[in-house]
Amino acid sequence: MATQGQVVTCKAAVAYEPSKPLVIEDVQVAPPQAGEVRIKILFTALCHTDAYTWSGKDPEGLFPCILGHEAAVIVESVGEGVTELQPGDHVIPCYQAECRECKFCKSGKTNLCGKVRTATGAGVMMNDRKSRFSVNGKPIYHFMGTSTFSQYTVVHDVSVAKVDPQAPLDKVCLLGCGVPTGLGAVWNTAKVEPGSIVAIFGLGTVGLAVAEGAKSAGASRIIGVDIDSKKYDIAKNFGVTEFVNPKDYDKPIQQILVDLTDGGVDYSFECIGNVSVMRAALECCHKGWGTSVIIGVAASGQEISTRPFQLVTGRVWKGTAFGGFKSRSQVPWLVDKYMKKEIKIDEYITHNLTLGDINKAFDLMHEGGCLRCVLKLHE
Amino acid sequence: MATQGQVVTCKAAVAYEPSKPLVIEDVQVAPPQAGEVRIKILFTALCHTDAYTWSGKDPEGLFPCILGHEAAVIVESVGEGVTELQPGDHVIPCYQAECRECKFCKSGKTNLCGKVRTATGAGVMMNDRKSRFSVNGKPIYHFMGTSTFSQYTVVHDVSVAKVDPQAPLDKVCLLGCGVPTGLGAVWNTAKVEPGSIVAIFGLGTVGLAVAEGAKSAGASRIIGVDIDSKKYDIAKNFGVTEFVNPKDYDKPIQQILVDLTDGGVDYSFECIGNVSVMRAALECCHKGWGTSVIIGVAASGQEISTRPFQLVTGRVWKGTAFGGFKSRSQVPWLVDKYMKKEIKIDEYITHNLTLGDINKAFDLMHEGGCLRCVLKLHE
Repeated sequence: MATQGQVVTCKAAVAYEPSKPLVIEDVQVAPPQAGEVRIKILFTALCHTDAYTWSGKDPEGLFPCILGHEAAVIVESVGEGVTELQPGDHVIPCYQAECRECKFCKSGKTNLCGKVRTATGAGVMMNDRKSRFSVNGKPIYHFMGTSTFSQYTVVHDVSVAKVDPQAPLDKVCLLGCGVPTGLGAVWNTAKVEPGSIVAIFGLGTVGLAVAEGAKSAGASRIIGVDIDSKKYDIAKNFGVTEFVNPKDYDKPIQQILVDLTDGGVDYSFECIGNVSVMRAALECCHKGWGTSVIIGVAASGQEISTRPFQLVTGRVWKGTAFGGFKSRSQVPWLVDKYMKKEIKIDEYITHNLTLGDINKAFDLMHEGGCLRCVLKLHE
Repeated sequence: MATQGQVVTCKAAVAYEPSKPLVIEDVQVAPPQAGEVRIKILFTALCHTDAYTWSGKDPEGLFPCILGHEAAVIVESVGEGVTELQPGDHVIPCYQAECRECKFCKSGKTNLCGKVRTATGAGVMMNDRKSRFSVNGKPIYHFMGTSTFSQYTVVHDVSVAKVDPQAPLDKVCLLGCGVPTGLGAVWNTAKVEPGSIVAIFGLGTVGLAVAEGAKSAGASRIIGVDIDSKKYDIAKNFGVTEFVNPKDYDKPIQQILVDLTDGGVDYSFECIGNVSVMRAALECCHKGWGTSVIIGVAASGQEISTRPFQLVTGRVWKGTAFGGFKSRSQVPWLVDKYMKKEIKIDEYITHNLTLGDINKAFDLMHEGGCLRCVLKLHE
């Protein structure tokens, strides 16, 4: 393309300060360096983690920055040494890298990757520990190694999953975070078996993806727990078979669930990020084998707690990041599953807007009826 | 035997009040009822759980009671319906029952058993919710369904493991608690693989059994952590390859271990019952896969806590009771392993005394040089 090797000037939503409205700016995006890829973002969705960092509560949040991490894109140009990707490839940028060389990748035990984490955590690129974004010469930090609220962004090549070019990018952008996180928590982290009883705390996109994953794993009862009873109707479509609103009871929710299930659930999933709910999710598990998986991101400094007796009597407490999926290896597989109609995506998209509407999109996210809002970044 | 169907009067150590010296009394032991077995205790060891309940800190502790749960015995008589045992059988009473009929036993996922737990937790027998022990007509509570600090005791048939009559009872009594707990935590709960790096917090009998189990599982590094550096010499004999005394460092022990192991250990085991140590044991685990197993029993009301990020980034928090071993099925197998010299027992026994010396034996337990003290109950 004519832009290769050049600085690209494009529109991006810049977060200058915590909680202040994002500003649509002309941003300069430098060319990719060695091991980097510059990508043209076609569609991005919003996720609660973006809102969390934007709020200023994330102690690792850096400002000014360009948020966003759930997108579908086309490769614009590649840096030195990048051989597995070329301009025009359809890809999904992934906040979990997969280098296939580090101790983590080679362990066979985790989807976490250590290669670029120190850079992505610091809002810069690994090669020179600098940002590729600037506005009038002043650098703007990257976010999660993705920064998809921009028409163009630069990412590490180990953070890019090449997908079927036939896949609709306005849909598969959701495979960058929430949907895989929920599905993978069930399939990879908990390994739910047929006949299991499952409880899901929080019926947003991640919680619904957990329900979908549990249904496909053959769970016999899928109990949705949410303080908004209106969510049950939608949740049924994703596999939830029973609904419990903690506000309808005086007793602790863990006791309600233990009573409902003759001793507790086989698997529970916390999809909110609330440490009290994380405790309830553990304690509603069946003695002897119940496993609770933490998916939600808690506010900084908060801690989980329980009596050790809960674990000594056989409950297991785990967590998951990106559902345990290896990003470059498995996101293309998820795209294929979507193309074969084996997993849902369309049903999570409740709103479609453009980049210019991004502040409105964040407002929508906090309303009950919104699951995912997809933004179109180019006319 | 001539005593069958009769009340037996024998010596037992009665705990009348928390922390007050045990009193050697003439105790009446009623005959076994349906589903019960009366056993003659030949040898019993002391365990920290006995001391814990005796101290009064156990909220479920009941007084007066007869403590003790690590013993080797001979069946004296059996109650109605008991077909798998007969007088003269050599058995090990087990505080974890195994009925093979309840939801827990049939799950295939746990060694916990639900059948007699409500009775053993209340210090009585299931059949009539009463004690079989009395002194001058006043009932004395059972403890953990075992009460082995008595020359005779009555237990549920589902709590008795029949073992090789050739096995020396003054040794295999240790297979009633501490040794299987440590071995099983490694083999059944953590499932340590060859080449793993293991940390053990607390080098008492359970911690040393963890070391032995880890060594036999092929762990490459077995790091013992204890505030008593004198324990390292003994621990080497059980497989410990490195020793860390937290008192030698200013930094938190979890940081020391992470630094020593290039990111953390693969498996850690808490064998003390201290909730701060439980946290350290979790947090010294490697990101992505490290698994921490709680074995120690914490004081009543105490809670474990950590940042949920520890779990979200792949650490797993578990616990174990009796090392996950199914008592009636697997204790005989452990006895056979001892007879084939595949596991140690003799090396844990540092003292041999008689029932009359039991208060002295408890004093010894709190001294560094004591692992297990075995009491002989009959001349």
